[in-house]
Amino acid sequence: MLTMQEALARLTAYWTDQGALIVQPMNTEVGAGTLNPATFLRVLGPEPWRVVYVEPSVRPDDSRYGENPNRLQTHTQLQVILKPDPGNPQELYLGSLAALGIDVAAHDVRFVEDNWASPALGAWGLGWEVWLDGLEITQFTYFQQAGGINLDPVSVEITYGIERIIMALQDKQHFKEIEYAPGVSYGEVFGQSEYEMSRYYLDDADIEANRRLLELYAGEAQRMIDAGLPVPAHSYVLKCSQAFNVLDSRGAVSTADRAAEFGRMRRLAGEVAKLWVARRAELAHPLGTADAPSAAQPPATVRTGDRPRTLVFEIGTEELPPAELRSAREQVLRLVTEGLAGTRLAHGEVRVFGTPRRLIAVVPGVAAREEDHVRTVKGPRVGANEKAIEGFARGHGVTPDALRTEEFNGVPHLVLHKQEAGRAAPQVLADVLAKAVGGLRAAKNMRWNDPKLAFSRPVRWLTALWGGDVVPVAVSTLAAGRRTRLLRTANPPVADIASAETFLETLGVNGIVADHDDRRELIVIGAQDLVYPDGTVDVRGEAALIDQITDLVEQPLPLLGTFDEGYLTLPDAVLTTVMRKHQRYLPVRDEDGKLLPMFVTVANGPVDVELVRAGNEAVLRARYEDARFFYRADLDTPLAEMRARLSRLTFTDKLGSMADRAGRIGALARQLADRLGLGSATLDRAAELVKFDLGSQLVTEMTSLAGVMARDYALRAGESRAVAEAVFEAELPRNTGDSLPRTVPGALLSLADRLDLVAGLAATVGLPTGSSDPFAVRRAVLGLLAVHRSTAEFAPLDLLSALRLAADAQPVPVSEDVLTAVGDFLARRLEQALTEEGQPVDRVRAVLPHFARPSVADTLLAQLADAVEDTAFTSVAAAIQRARRIVPEGTAAAYDVSLLKEPAELALHQAVSAVVRPAVPDLPQFVAATRGLVEPVHTFFEDVLVMAEDPDIRAARLGLLASVRDLGEGLLDWPQLRL
Amino acid sequence: MLTMQEALARLTAYWTDQGALIVQPMNTEVGAGTLNPATFLRVLGPEPWRVVYVEPSVRPDDSRYGENPNRLQTHTQLQVILKPDPGNPQELYLGSLAALGIDVAAHDVRFVEDNWASPALGAWGLGWEVWLDGLEITQFTYFQQAGGINLDPVSVEITYGIERIIMALQDKQHFKEIEYAPGVSYGEVFGQSEYEMSRYYLDDADIEANRRLLELYAGEAQRMIDAGLPVPAHSYVLKCSQAFNVLDSRGAVSTADRAAEFGRMRRLAGEVAKLWVARRAELAHPLGTADAPSAAQPPATVRTGDRPRTLVFEIGTEELPPAELRSAREQVLRLVTEGLAGTRLAHGEVRVFGTPRRLIAVVPGVAAREEDHVRTVKGPRVGANEKAIEGFARGHGVTPDALRTEEFNGVPHLVLHKQEAGRAAPQVLADVLAKAVGGLRAAKNMRWNDPKLAFSRPVRWLTALWGGDVVPVAVSTLAAGRRTRLLRTANPPVADIASAETFLETLGVNGIVADHDDRRELIVIGAQDLVYPDGTVDVRGEAALIDQITDLVEQPLPLLGTFDEGYLTLPDAVLTTVMRKHQRYLPVRDEDGKLLPMFVTVANGPVDVELVRAGNEAVLRARYEDARFFYRADLDTPLAEMRARLSRLTFTDKLGSMADRAGRIGALARQLADRLGLGSATLDRAAELVKFDLGSQLVTEMTSLAGVMARDYALRAGESRAVAEAVFEAELPRNTGDSLPRTVPGALLSLADRLDLVAGLAATVGLPTGSSDPFAVRRAVLGLLAVHRSTAEFAPLDLLSALRLAADAQPVPVSEDVLTAVGDFLARRLEQALTEEGQPVDRVRAVLPHFARPSVADTLLAQLADAVEDTAFTSVAAAIQRARRIVPEGTAAAYDVSLLKEPAELALHQAVSAVVRPAVPDLPQFVAATRGLVEPVHTFFEDVLVMAEDPDIRAARLGLLASVRDLGEGLLDWPQLRL
Repeated sequence: MLTMQEALARLTAYWTDQGALIVQPMNTEVGAGTLNPATFLRVLGPEPWRVVYVEPSVRPDDSRYGENPNRLQTHTQLQVILKPDPGNPQELYLGSLAALGIDVAAHDVRFVEDNWASPALGAWGLGWEVWLDGLEITQFTYFQQAGGINLDPVSVEITYGIERIIMALQDKQHFKEIEYAPGVSYGEVFGQSEYEMSRYYLDDADIEANRRLLELYAGEAQRMIDAGLPVPAHSYVLKCSQAFNVLDSRGAVSTADRAAEFGRMRRLAGEVAKLWVARRAELAHPLGTADAPSAAQPPATVRTGDRPRTLVFEIGTEELPPAELRSAREQVLRLVTEGLAGTRLAHGEVRVFGTPRRLIAVVPGVAAREEDHVRTVKGPRVGANEKAIEGFARGHGVTPDALRTEEFNGVPHLVLHKQEAGRAAPQVLADVLAKAVGGLRAAKNMRWNDPKLAFSRPVRWLTALWGGDVVPVAVSTLAAGRRTRLLRTANPPVADIASAETFLETLGVNGIVADHDDRRELIVIGAQDLVYPDGTVDVRGEAALIDQITDLVEQPLPLLGTFDEGYLTLPDAVLTTVMRKHQRYLPVRDEDGKLLPMFVTVANGPVDVELVRAGNEAVLRARYEDARFFYRADLDTPLAEMRARLSRLTFTDKLGSMADRAGRIGALARQLADRLGLGSATLDRAAELVKFDLGSQLVTEMTSLAGVMARDYALRAGESRAVAEAVFEAELPRNTGDSLPRTVPGALLSLADRLDLVAGLAATVGLPTGSSDPFAVRRAVLGLLAVHRSTAEFAPLDLLSALRLAADAQPVPVSEDVLTAVGDFLARRLEQALTEEGQPVDRVRAVLPHFARPSVADTLLAQLADAVEDTAFTSVAAAIQRARRIVPEGTAAAYDVSLLKEPAELALHQAVSAVVRPAVPDLPQFVAATRGLVEPVHTFFEDVLVMAEDPDIRAARLGLLASVRDLGEGLLDWPQLRL
Repeated sequence: MLTMQEALARLTAYWTDQGALIVQPMNTEVGAGTLNPATFLRVLGPEPWRVVYVEPSVRPDDSRYGENPNRLQTHTQLQVILKPDPGNPQELYLGSLAALGIDVAAHDVRFVEDNWASPALGAWGLGWEVWLDGLEITQFTYFQQAGGINLDPVSVEITYGIERIIMALQDKQHFKEIEYAPGVSYGEVFGQSEYEMSRYYLDDADIEANRRLLELYAGEAQRMIDAGLPVPAHSYVLKCSQAFNVLDSRGAVSTADRAAEFGRMRRLAGEVAKLWVARRAELAHPLGTADAPSAAQPPATVRTGDRPRTLVFEIGTEELPPAELRSAREQVLRLVTEGLAGTRLAHGEVRVFGTPRRLIAVVPGVAAREEDHVRTVKGPRVGANEKAIEGFARGHGVTPDALRTEEFNGVPHLVLHKQEAGRAAPQVLADVLAKAVGGLRAAKNMRWNDPKLAFSRPVRWLTALWGGDVVPVAVSTLAAGRRTRLLRTANPPVADIASAETFLETLGVNGIVADHDDRRELIVIGAQDLVYPDGTVDVRGEAALIDQITDLVEQPLPLLGTFDEGYLTLPDAVLTTVMRKHQRYLPVRDEDGKLLPMFVTVANGPVDVELVRAGNEAVLRARYEDARFFYRADLDTPLAEMRARLSRLTFTDKLGSMADRAGRIGALARQLADRLGLGSATLDRAAELVKFDLGSQLVTEMTSLAGVMARDYALRAGESRAVAEAVFEAELPRNTGDSLPRTVPGALLSLADRLDLVAGLAATVGLPTGSSDPFAVRRAVLGLLAVHRSTAEFAPLDLLSALRLAADAQPVPVSEDVLTAVGDFLARRLEQALTEEGQPVDRVRAVLPHFARPSVADTLLAQLADAVEDTAFTSVAAAIQRARRIVPEGTAAAYDVSLLKEPAELALHQAVSAVVRPAVPDLPQFVAATRGLVEPVHTFFEDVLVMAEDPDIRAARLGLLASVRDLGEGLLDWPQLRL
């Protein structure tokens, strides 16, 4: 059995054999190997760099006193940087696993989308987490940017999580049991340090001292930047980061602090990066400059026939994320279809297939060549001088007598009808396909060792055949051939394709299922077979997950795993969250919908089933063990104590702790209830408890379970079902489309929560602008509107006044300007929401004055749909709009009746006077009340000249119209309405 | 060729093969691998621990911008800890060199005394620096104490200086040229960092920020100690150390700061160590407890003859320091001689030989057994009751009639004469020799894996033969045998000795020269032969060095090395200091005493001469290259600029910079000159320059050259020879026995220097007590006295008033109490010095009132030597002493002459009145002046009863005697004089 230190030595030796340098871990605490200058600085600039090093990575937040089997405040990373991307980094990586004695063909090794970004470093990259039988063992990233600088060349970063790998290899359940060296366990060597450093990070670090350290470090970093010394500056940026992490683990960082510190670190890191690049250039790049890969030459092509043949075009990639794969299939379909449409090649329907590693376009019946055609070349006008005509003819290699005449815009010109032969299919296709590759784009694109391409993940090979002929596609460094790649574990891992017609068959023979739907079906049927007759997989409920899984494999192999029944005592949501979100396992339920102690995972390719099953079961066990550990600890904790812990969580520096916030939410909910007459004992109790589960260990670990766990813990602590439901519903909606509170106490708490958030943040941080919305204020506002609209009892509640209550409770003053801005923001979000629901924009805008009572807006919108069909309404509306246009702003609805002489005037006067405006905004009532105006208004506009010469008369008429105008006041924003 | 990263991997693999764990470098900056908790904490307590790790060691002071070929602010250590001492750590270490491909038999590998202490860690150990052909490549230490705690078991620490080793293996002249990895040089990888971190440490680090960091770190360390968490506390102690080092390299640490910070760190480290020990005990020592080695059984012995044979006893050790070897030889001689004297074994003269690895006692003619003898056992008194008598007899296995009678103090007792057979030689010798081993002690003793022994270095084997018989000596874990060890590179490295008579011969045959004098002769003759006829080695001048070299080898092999003539442009003192002090090379001179570009080094054993020569030459070249680098830089620097740099060197925090101090010295020297009429232009200029060379790079590197370089640089800068000599002499005497200033300006500056030092430090730090004298105040005072005494011009100068001048110039007040204390301290040192020069204590004490003008004391002492032979003096002296005894203290020298009636009274009165006391303290003058008193005094004491009944008469007589008493006032402390 490999000891941990042997494993480190083997990996190091493997990578040095691949030409990597060895450097030492950073001599200041870092959270990851990425921060070591051997990564952060060296990925910048043009110098090549290959390095391998161990990095004990300090994550104060992960401190668990050494008690958690899988989490350590210091874990060991092995970090590899390959710069430039060698073109086959995944294969090299798999070689390193083999060096550890891992049989990669027997295990299920997978590259699962996991992008990486460090806001504090201004760095990001795209890549994967590598799974070994469901266990995340490595982070694999194509570094795109560091310190805000685009990287050229791109570096490959491979980060092994050593403790995890070793636990899996040694089959250990707790990191302390790892055999670190022969006869010596990890716990024996590092246990005490793990405990004591946890104590420091969680309990004992002095907050004030660490704050001061942070400031001093930032000061030195800045000074070194000013002195033009990126190396010491970087070291101080790292110290900033560690001091910040210590403060964070001590609960001393508010969200605002975090944003500010990240901003500062990002700025410092950016300056460091810029300086480094400049210094290396000054030093003339001591390590040289990486060679750019050269452009590929298209293969020579031999055309072998004249009959139509199938075209197959495969774009071979590294593992695409499922969402990108779907989009990429559509793009290929469009690009190839449009590309072919731009040619004169006859062809059949384009079909596109995709797996994580390939995009395949298949086009049957592609003609051997374009049809010939006649092209008309426009020459000089008829009657132009001879020289010009002769010149034109000579230019085209003909004599003037070969020219014909055609009219252009009625003017006769000489033209040449040129006979053009259609090009051969391979030649035509080569252009179309090359453009398709170059045109591929993802939502998030990356670069790799190719100087010209950009896509979601690297494109590594092209296979292009027209019948038996290679289509001579060449794009940047890639040239197509007839060779495709199979599963990496196949022997050999490549296959040469005889002809386009046999391509899919060849893939199929080699186990690769190119079609998404086929794979999906294999998964669904396979999964149901596996669980039959004990249970079933909820295929409809898990559709999104199944779709995702389908696009994570090329050769789906569903496997049934089980777990200990004992874990079923954990809440359903906990179990399924772990399965779905962390592991992409399908839960299995009995006919009553109860979870069974099993799961279906889908491996890729012909693995050793028992081995992979056992591995996945071990991973799930570890995760459930973790969860149970937290769950039990939580159940042992009185609700009040969890609630009390909120005082240790900072909300923002100016808005106090989460305890303060929860207190404000509870109080506000009760104030609102009082106002609306909705108070209850349930609400009172739920208000005391609201958000208490943020103080639980499980929610600290799995934040998405906030509310769900509150309900569970509340019930188990003996609270009433109503109270439990209310604390759950307080968190709803958690995202767009999530369910909404159904009970009044839940709705009140939900509303109060969001009011408090919006009022406080608007006054301190400001409302979100553009894409920056770190506190998700936008989501909170949408929730506010949704809850108000869905709760009939809230109809009378004016959100602006509710907001004012929330504002009064903030520990900071909230100015009128802020409230106005929030109102405007609310209105905009309501407008957006209603429009997205399909309401006509004009009507939405017309009802928007009621944004503060969005249910009123809803009602009015519904009524408008009928009203616009009703001439009684439309006439009055038109009248009101006409009146608005005529009557100068500021004109009061008052007039000297005695000056009204015309019958139409008088009729209108009487009709207006007779209107009793309804007390509530209600269109049917309004229509009923104003029905009598239709005729008089019509007549008035027919008969009366408003702008009379006599100013008094004119004033009286305008006053009368102003009265008409004001009939609709407060009901709708009339000018918005398009009738 | 091994790259640096391969070398690290090889060493790591070698030590893991020896059972070592691998850990990672510390994740905070450390100055050495020792600070890593894998050493500092793990050496504490009973748990076994074997570890190997790389430690990039940060030494801000060693920053050189990457320009110096051999010095780096971050150098790479490979650290090994073997706990407990495995008994053969040196052999294991040599194995590691072999693993690097070093042929240890061909090279000259040596263990050269180098003890280690870290005051800041409360840690120390004894051991060696390991030389490879003169190059220090490893520090090898037996750790004795850490954090002030005695270590049990003792750990072996092996610290490889990787860059140096690699430079030697790769034959590189500059660290940047090291091949770090295939095709990549060290400079390419680390050059920029070396430059930038040097900038930070030397120029750009913010002093105030680092001061604050230091305080914050110390605060956190203390808090963690209070929380009982040694691991985080230790980490903060390390951060303290780094912050301190940064401040130091920025020149911001005064001597007082340093002492205070070291004190604080020592205290913190001590607390950490105590806590760690306690915590490991609480955790029940997770790594177990090291087994104590078991006691050795003495070998069974067969005696093979009855005739006298030679005894040979060899105590095999690891390399003893030369000074300890001399002392150990004497001890063995004494212990064996005394031990044998306590037996009845006949034997010849004990002789003792020694090499660094063995102490050998040879005793010819040791009888085969002790002579038989009769022992008298005392029984009851004659006439005691029968029971008692019978009991006594029975107790000794005889009947009462076997008893005889003998008198004890005149009382007859019954006695038994017991015939006792002498014991056999091996048995007797075993006891004697065992005690000799146990009794060995050094000036500084250590412990190793033996639970009972303590010595300068470990004792590893015993060889003990009486003729052909093994003497069954057993001491703790060691049992003697007939096997001795040869040079470690011999094949085989051990030899079995047939008989004691052949022992030295066997050693000799194997190349080991046991006798110091023989080795010395081989060295001297060999060296002279090597340099003949070009030059000569100054055997007399280098006697101490030759003695040291002699005791560094077992088989001396003098080798001639050369160096580039170009280096001869460096000052002689620089060249020889490097040769002697750093390398133990013998300088070679021509007949005029001029240095030749060669040196003699003495290898140990049959090495590859060319290889070793080349290695040593390379070492010397590197050192000279360093020196030349500094020397040239210094020559390019105007004297004024070097002088100006003194303002960056702190003397102490309260006493200002070295510039302040140099200023005070110059001013004081001129004041003193004015007082004594000794002023000159030479003095004025020298006073401006004094101490300027402390601002030179060379003196910063080689502090022992202070003054020497000042003279050199002054001359080369065009100063007069007199000025140059004065700035040199200002530093004299540098230690006891050093030469003294010969010129008046030099003497004035020297005096002023020492006055300034003593006045300032006495007022701030206090005078030295016991062994603690960090500022060498004692040496300064001795120098003060020596210079005063040796300079005739200073005779009129009173050191106390001079001290007062120095005190007035201090930036702090110097109280009268302090000056009094300094005066007392001066007097004590003078007393001590004079006594050590062989002056009788009574006379020394008699002249001590003149301590402030020590040349007066000298004169008086010289005069006293004659005076005590002169009755004229002794009579007066006796009279004065007699008068002192009779006359009550406080009695004035006044009397009513009219009351004197007796002739003897009157005669004395007249004689006293006639004395004209000489103006200066001068005994011949005093004798001449008082010669007339001899007779009257004598008569007075014969004839007159001083204590007359009449009080008036008594008063007059006492007054008269008081006048006699006062004649000697101010001349001597008369009561001290024993006549």
